[in-house]
Amino acid sequence: MGMVGGGPGALIGPIHRIAAELDREIVLVAGAFSSDAKRSIAGGAAYAIEPERAYPSLAAMLTAERGREDGIEMVAIASPNHHHLGAARAALEAGVAVMCDKPLTATLDEARDLERLVRAAGLPFGVTYTYSGYPLVREARARVAAGALGAIRKVVVEYPQGWLAGKAEGKQAAWRIDPAMAGSGGCIADIGVHAFHLAEFVAGLKVTRLLADLAAVVPGRVLDDDCQLLLRFENGARGVLLASQISVGERNGLRLRVYGEHGGLDWQQEQPNRLWLYRADGGTELIQAGDASLGADAVAASRTPGGHPEGYLEAFANLYRDFAGLVRGEKALLLPGIEAGVRGMMLIDAAVRASRDEAGWIDFGQSGSGS
Amino acid sequence: MGMVGGGPGALIGPIHRIAAELDREIVLVAGAFSSDAKRSIAGGAAYAIEPERAYPSLAAMLTAERGREDGIEMVAIASPNHHHLGAARAALEAGVAVMCDKPLTATLDEARDLERLVRAAGLPFGVTYTYSGYPLVREARARVAAGALGAIRKVVVEYPQGWLAGKAEGKQAAWRIDPAMAGSGGCIADIGVHAFHLAEFVAGLKVTRLLADLAAVVPGRVLDDDCQLLLRFENGARGVLLASQISVGERNGLRLRVYGEHGGLDWQQEQPNRLWLYRADGGTELIQAGDASLGADAVAASRTPGGHPEGYLEAFANLYRDFAGLVRGEKALLLPGIEAGVRGMMLIDAAVRASRDEAGWIDFGQSGSGS
Amino acid sequence: MGMVGGGPGALIGPIHRIAAELDREIVLVAGAFSSDAKRSIAGGAAYAIEPERAYPSLAAMLTAERGREDGIEMVAIASPNHHHLGAARAALEAGVAVMCDKPLTATLDEARDLERLVRAAGLPFGVTYTYSGYPLVREARARVAAGALGAIRKVVVEYPQGWLAGKAEGKQAAWRIDPAMAGSGGCIADIGVHAFHLAEFVAGLKVTRLLADLAAVVPGRVLDDDCQLLLRFENGARGVLLASQISVGERNGLRLRVYGEHGGLDWQQEQPNRLWLYRADGGTELIQAGDASLGADAVAASRTPGGHPEGYLEAFANLYRDFAGLVRGEKALLLPGIEAGVRGMMLIDAAVRASRDEAGWIDFGQSGSGS
Amino acid sequence: MGMVGGGPGALIGPIHRIAAELDREIVLVAGAFSSDAKRSIAGGAAYAIEPERAYPSLAAMLTAERGREDGIEMVAIASPNHHHLGAARAALEAGVAVMCDKPLTATLDEARDLERLVRAAGLPFGVTYTYSGYPLVREARARVAAGALGAIRKVVVEYPQGWLAGKAEGKQAAWRIDPAMAGSGGCIADIGVHAFHLAEFVAGLKVTRLLADLAAVVPGRVLDDDCQLLLRFENGARGVLLASQISVGERNGLRLRVYGEHGGLDWQQEQPNRLWLYRADGGTELIQAGDASLGADAVAASRTPGGHPEGYLEAFANLYRDFAGLVRGEKALLLPGIEAGVRGMMLIDAAVRASRDEAGWIDFGQSGSGS
Repeated sequence: MGMVGGGPGALIGPIHRIAAELDREIVLVAGAFSSDAKRSIAGGAAYAIEPERAYPSLAAMLTAERGREDGIEMVAIASPNHHHLGAARAALEAGVAVMCDKPLTATLDEARDLERLVRAAGLPFGVTYTYSGYPLVREARARVAAGALGAIRKVVVEYPQGWLAGKAEGKQAAWRIDPAMAGSGGCIADIGVHAFHLAEFVAGLKVTRLLADLAAVVPGRVLDDDCQLLLRFENGARGVLLASQISVGERNGLRLRVYGEHGGLDWQQEQPNRLWLYRADGGTELIQAGDASLGADAVAASRTPGGHPEGYLEAFANLYRDFAGLVRGEKALLLPGIEAGVRGMMLIDAAVRASRDEAGWIDFGQSGSGS
Repeated sequence: MGMVGGGPGALIGPIHRIAAELDREIVLVAGAFSSDAKRSIAGGAAYAIEPERAYPSLAAMLTAERGREDGIEMVAIASPNHHHLGAARAALEAGVAVMCDKPLTATLDEARDLERLVRAAGLPFGVTYTYSGYPLVREARARVAAGALGAIRKVVVEYPQGWLAGKAEGKQAAWRIDPAMAGSGGCIADIGVHAFHLAEFVAGLKVTRLLADLAAVVPGRVLDDDCQLLLRFENGARGVLLASQISVGERNGLRLRVYGEHGGLDWQQEQPNRLWLYRADGGTELIQAGDASLGADAVAASRTPGGHPEGYLEAFANLYRDFAGLVRGEKALLLPGIEAGVRGMMLIDAAVRASRDEAGWIDFGQSGSGS
Repeated sequence: MGMVGGGPGALIGPIHRIAAELDREIVLVAGAFSSDAKRSIAGGAAYAIEPERAYPSLAAMLTAERGREDGIEMVAIASPNHHHLGAARAALEAGVAVMCDKPLTATLDEARDLERLVRAAGLPFGVTYTYSGYPLVREARARVAAGALGAIRKVVVEYPQGWLAGKAEGKQAAWRIDPAMAGSGGCIADIGVHAFHLAEFVAGLKVTRLLADLAAVVPGRVLDDDCQLLLRFENGARGVLLASQISVGERNGLRLRVYGEHGGLDWQQEQPNRLWLYRADGGTELIQAGDASLGADAVAASRTPGGHPEGYLEAFANLYRDFAGLVRGEKALLLPGIEAGVRGMMLIDAAVRASRDEAGWIDFGQSGSGS
Repeated sequence: MGMVGGGPGALIGPIHRIAAELDREIVLVAGAFSSDAKRSIAGGAAYAIEPERAYPSLAAMLTAERGREDGIEMVAIASPNHHHLGAARAALEAGVAVMCDKPLTATLDEARDLERLVRAAGLPFGVTYTYSGYPLVREARARVAAGALGAIRKVVVEYPQGWLAGKAEGKQAAWRIDPAMAGSGGCIADIGVHAFHLAEFVAGLKVTRLLADLAAVVPGRVLDDDCQLLLRFENGARGVLLASQISVGERNGLRLRVYGEHGGLDWQQEQPNRLWLYRADGGTELIQAGDASLGADAVAASRTPGGHPEGYLEAFANLYRDFAGLVRGEKALLLPGIEAGVRGMMLIDAAVRASRDEAGWIDFGQSGSGS
C-alpha cells in the first residue's frame, strides 16, 4: 500500500498505517507523504519506509511503483479533502485501488465526478467511515435488519466534540476550518458525515429530506462548527442529527439511538464494546463484545475475547480487512463504498443549502445505485 | 392543603401528597378527588382524609373549608389539563393559593387568562415543573449564573420516554392522548414543557424562536407523541429540544447539556445526584450531591448526606417547600410561577403552529414580566 | 410515634421522621430529643412537636404519653448505640413497640439481653437496616430465593466510605469513634452491619465462619475504621465483606454481588433503582425500578413509575411501612427484626475477636430462631 | 521475532503477534508453533510465516535462525506455563532475548532458576503483565508516585471472570485447570498474578504478608478457581485481592482502587481510558485518555486523540514497544521484568501455602533486587 498525505505532523496517517497492517494483509511500503521531497522522506522514515519509496508526489509514486515487481496495488488517501478527487483519479487511472478518507471530496460536484471514475474503473474503492467498523455497530445493523426493533420510527444520532470551541490551533484544526481545503462544510463535513453514515448504515434506511441549522459559532470562523439537522427517512421515520465541535468537554461522543415499533437500541462510541437493546416489554439487555449471542458480522470483526476492549484502531482495521477482501475478489458488503461516499457529500451539500436563509425542509436527492 | 383530582387510580395525586407533606410544612386535609361523591370519599380515604372533607367538587370544598377554622389555605391541582383554568380561577377567587400541575392549562388563551387572574389575585401560585427541584439542577443553574461556562452557546435538552410506543392503555394514557382533555399538544404538553422549563431555568436564557417537527407516530393517534425542535435563545445561543413517548426502552430520560464559551455541563434525571462539569482545559469534574463545593441552593434542597440518593419525590417536595415559603411571605425565586407556566403554553402553541405545514422558524413571542 | 434522640444537630433523626411519616401511617408526635429539657423542646420544635410532648427523658415520655388518649404506640430509637438497650427495655416494658437504629446495641451481651426482652414482650420490634428497604434489593432477594442464580457460590459485599479519612470532626463523627458510645466496633459497627445484613438478606444464607482484618488506620483512632473480612456461609459458599471509612472519595458505596451456579447479580446503593442480572449463557440484563418483570415485593416497595428515581428516604420508609403493618397485626417478613439485630452484633463481636492477634478463622456462632 | 507456541487454536498467539507488530518495530518472522511439524507449518501460515521458518521445536528454530542473516533476535513465549522455563533457558542460552507470557513459570523453584538465568544472560527479558501497558494505568502509577494520594493506606484489586463457572470446555480452559501444565495455581496463576502486579505497579509498594482463601469451587476441579486474599504492604498499608473465574457474568473485570491519606483512585479494565481521581476535599475528577493533564508516560503510551478508544491490543503493544526499546539499549522502566515475574510466582506459592489448612497470615518473602 502507498499513502497519500499523512506526512510529518499528520494525525490520521499513522492511524491508517496501523489499521491497514493490523491483520497482516496489507503493508505500507510507499508514500507521497508531502509535496516537499525532503519532508516526504522524513514522513516515510516515521513509518520505516525506505527513502526511495517516499515520493514527492502521487504521480511520481504511481509511475515508480508501476515499474517495480513489488509495486503497490492500492493507495490510502489521507490528505485534506480538496486533494481527494485528484488523488483518487490518478490512482484509479493507474489501475490502483483506493481507500479514501472522508469526506469523499471537497464538493458534491467532485463527488459525482469521482463516482463516475470509480464505476468506470471497476477497482476496489472504500471510504473510511471508521465507526461502521466497530463490532457492535455491525451487530446493531444486523439486529435491525433481522427485525429486532420492528419498523424503524426514529433515529437520533449525535456527534459532539469540543476541540474547536476555542481559537483553533495547530495543523489539524487549520485545514478543517479553511474552505479552500475543507470544502463548503466544516463540522458537517468533518464529523457530520460519520454520524450520517452510521445512522443510515445501522437503520438500513436512506434519508430523503432534511432541515438544517448550521452555524459558525466561534467568532471569525467561516465554516460551520455546530450543526443541528432534522431528518426524514425513506420509510417516513424521523430523525435528528447533531454534530458539534464547540461542545466544550466532549471528546468524540458519537452516539446512535434507533427506535422501532417494538424495540430500541443505543450505541456509544466511547464505550464501543457495549450495545444496549430495549424490548417493548420493558426489558433492557446489555450486549457486549464477545457475547455468545453475537451474529457473524460482529464475531468476524472481533480479535479478542469478551472483556478485552477493542477500540478505534481495531474498528478502522476492520475496514481495511474488508478492503483486502475486495482486492482478493471477495465481497465486502459492510465496507462503505463510493455510494456511501457520495451520500456523505450530498449531506454536506444539502445541509449547507438548507441552512442558508433558513430554507426549511429540502429534498435530499438521489444517489446512484450499487455501493 | 386541598387536592383537586388525584382520586382513585391517579398517578400524580399521591405524589403531590407525599411531596407536599415531606417537610411537614403542608398537610393534605381535604380534597375534591372526583366529581362522583362516593369516589371522592374513596379517593380521600386512600390519603386518610376524613369523609367530610372529601368533596364532590372544588366549589363545595372551597365553600365548606372557608367555614372551618382549620380550613385549607391552598390547593394542589392534579386533574387533567382542561380542568386547570377553572379550578385555579375558583381557588384564587376564594382567596386560596394554588399549586398547579403542568402544563398550566389546555390552551394558550386559557393560560393568558390564568396569568391575569394570578396577577390580579396576588396569591401564591406555583407550577410543578418537578425537575427544577433537584438539588443538582439548582446547582447547575447557579454555576451557569456565576459564569462557570462563560456565555452560553448551545443547549441540548432531551426527554425520551417509551411508554406510549404501543397502543396506549390505562387511565394515565387515555387523557393524555385525548385533545379534549390534554389540549392541542400531546407529548409536547406532557413532557416537552418540562424539558423546556429545565433548559430555560438552567441556562438562564429565554427562547425567542423555534422550529418544530411534531408527529403522531403511533397509528390512530391524534396528538403528537414525538417532538423534535430547534431553538434559538435570546442571546443567539442555539438549542435542540427532543421529546418523545415512542422511544421504546426509555423510561424518563430527561437530560440537559449546556455548553458555553469555556465550559459545559451535563445532567441526567435518572441519575439526578450527579452533575458533570467540563472545563475548557479538558478537565472533567463529577459534582455529586453532598459535595462540599455545592452552593447554597443545592444544599438547601438536600435532606441527606452525600451518597444517600435523593430522588423524584424529594425534588417535588422542594417545590412544595418553596411554596410553603411563599405562603409564609418569603420569596421563592426558584419556584416556577405563572410566567414559567405561561411560557410552557407558549411552547406548546408555537411548536404546534411551527410544525403545521412545516412552517419553518417562528417567533416564540413575549411573555409577561415577573414570575 | 415518639423519638428517642434525634435532637438538635442530629443527622438520622430527621430521616427517621420523614421515613416514618412518608406513607401517612405513622406520625411523629412526641420525643425525648435530649436529656436537656430546653434542648429537647428545641429539638422537638424542628419537627413541629408541641413543647409539652418534647420530653427530657424517655421515662418522662413513656409516663406522660401513657396518660394521653392519643399517646404514642411506638418509639424510634435514634440515639447512639450505648443507649439502645436501656431505651428499648424501657419502651418494651411500657408496652410500646420499638423501631431501633443499628447496630442493635453497644455489645453482644446487651444484644442477647435485648433479644430476651423482645421475645418476652411480644411487641413489634424492628431494626433499621435501611438498605434492605430498596425495591431492587427486595427484587434481588426474591430472584435468589426463586433460584435465578442456582446454588449460591460467592458473595462480595463492600461498603466504602471516605468521610473519616481525616481527623474526624463534628458530632456525627465524635460518638462513632468513641468506644464509650459506639461500643467495641467502629466502622464494623457503623456500616459493616449494614453490609452484613444485606448479604444475608439477599443471599438467603447465614454466615457460619469468618476471618477478619480490622484496623484503626487514622493515627490516634481507637476503633476500627477499615475492615476486611472473609466469610463462609452455611451452604459452603464463600464471601468477602469490605467496609471502610477511610476510602477517600467514596460516599456511601454499598454494593452487593452474588454469584451462583448459573447466574449472578450486582446492586449498588448509589444507583439503587438498577439491578444487574447475569445469566450463565453470557447474557446481561438490567432490571430497573418500574419494570414489568418485577416481583410483588419490589412493586409493593415502589411509589413512583419507572424512571422517576426513588432513593434512600423511600427505602427507609419501606421499613416503617412494614413496621406499621406489624403494629396492625400483619406479617412483615422483610423487616429486619431482633434476630437480624443480634446477628449484626455477633458480626461485630466475631470480627473484633477474629482480628485481635490475627486469630484466623473463627466460628460465627448461633443466633436464636425466629426473627 | 519468533514465537513459541501460539499455534492452531491458540488464543494468545495472535494477540502477541498483533501487539508486537503494532508499532512496526518488531515483526513476527518465525515460530515453533507446535511440536508437530505439520501443525507448526499450519500455525505459521495463519501468521503468513513461510513454511521454512515454522519449526517443529524451539531448538530447531534457534539453530536454524542463528544461521540466517535475518535471524530472529527475540522470542515470544506463548505456550502453557510448564514450558516457559525450558523455552526461556534455550533462548537465553542462544543469545536471544525473551518476552514471556505470565505466569513466569509453573513453579516458584523454576522461577528462581529462570531469574538466575536471566541475570546471568544480561539479555532483554519481559513478562506480559498486559494491563500495566494501559496509558491510564501508567498515569495512575505516576500520580501515586508524585504523591497525589499521599501515603497509601489501602489497595483493593479485584479480577472477576465467569468463564470457568461451568464445566470448562475447550483448549483454553483445558490446560489452565490441569496442574501438570498450569502448575500449582489455577485462577491465582492465570489472573491473580495480573491483579497482583497491577496493585504493586500502581501503588509503588511491595506486598510483605498475605492471607489466602483459595478454593476449587466447581465440582471435580483440582486447581483453585476462586481466590480471596488479604494483603499487607511494606509501608503497612492493607489490601485485598480478589480473583475469580466462577463469577458468572463477569468478563474481564480487573479493577484497582487505591486510597491514600488525601486522595483515592479507581481504574477499571473494561473502561480502560478512564481514571477516577478523588480528592480529600470531596472532589471527583475523571481523567481521560488524551487529556491535557496527562503525564509523559500516559502520553507516550497513546496512539490516538482523546475520545478514540484504545484497548487491550494497544496496551499489549506498549509492552512490546518497551521491549523494543530494551533491545535497542534503552531503558524500559515500566516493562515488567524478571523480578516482577518472580514476584508473581511468589504470590502463587504463598497463596497456595497460606490457603492450605487455613494457615493464616504468612510472610511473602523477599524477591531479588533490580527488575
